[in-house]
Amino acid sequence: MRTLDHPATDELELDTVLAALGDPVRRRIVLQLADGHDEQACIAFELPVSKSTSTHHFRVLRTAGVISQCYRGTAIHSTLRRDDLDERFPGLLDAVLDAARR
Amino acid sequence: MRTLDHPATDELELDTVLAALGDPVRRRIVLQLADGHDEQACIAFELPVSKSTSTHHFRVLRTAGVISQCYRGTAIHSTLRRDDLDERFPGLLDAVLDAARR
Repeated sequence: MRTLDHPATDELELDTVLAALGDPVRRRIVLQLADGHDEQACIAFELPVSKSTSTHHFRVLRTAGVISQCYRGTAIHSTLRRDDLDERFPGLLDAVLDAARR
Repeated sequence: MRTLDHPATDELELDTVLAALGDPVRRRIVLQLADGHDEQACIAFELPVSKSTSTHHFRVLRTAGVISQCYRGTAIHSTLRRDDLDERFPGLLDAVLDAARR
């Protein structure tokens, strides 16, 4: 089974996480995962961008450590790494999500 | 007297603020302002970059609304816009500063 690379919790970098969260499409993905979807297939997100752009955004979020992704059959499912982010950067995710919800 | 442009509090944009805070030199400036210096001349910061690079970073912080700058004679003094940031994006600045202090 194919697997995807993910940084460990103690490898999460503030610069990379802030850059990942500093884009409105990526925040929209994170908001959808935070607000009621523990795990969601990439295809289930409604995003105002092309599929390849969307794939790029998911990859940025994964390599930054904001989401984890895994294969379920042929689909890739995404999960928010809330606990890891809260451990490494307490309060940061909630502050960004609160700001994004306004 | 020369003045410098600053965005109003309700004009602060999350993307721009996250990008401004997503650089280690700029976070160092913000940390120095947060930790005990209400107002500080640009020249008083010890930064590991050239003067022109430093000037760039201060400008990015100012145009994002993270700091305000004003002339004091020939020097430019900087102040952290903590209240404005806390009003617009509650908890965000503290979360980033906490993460940056680790």
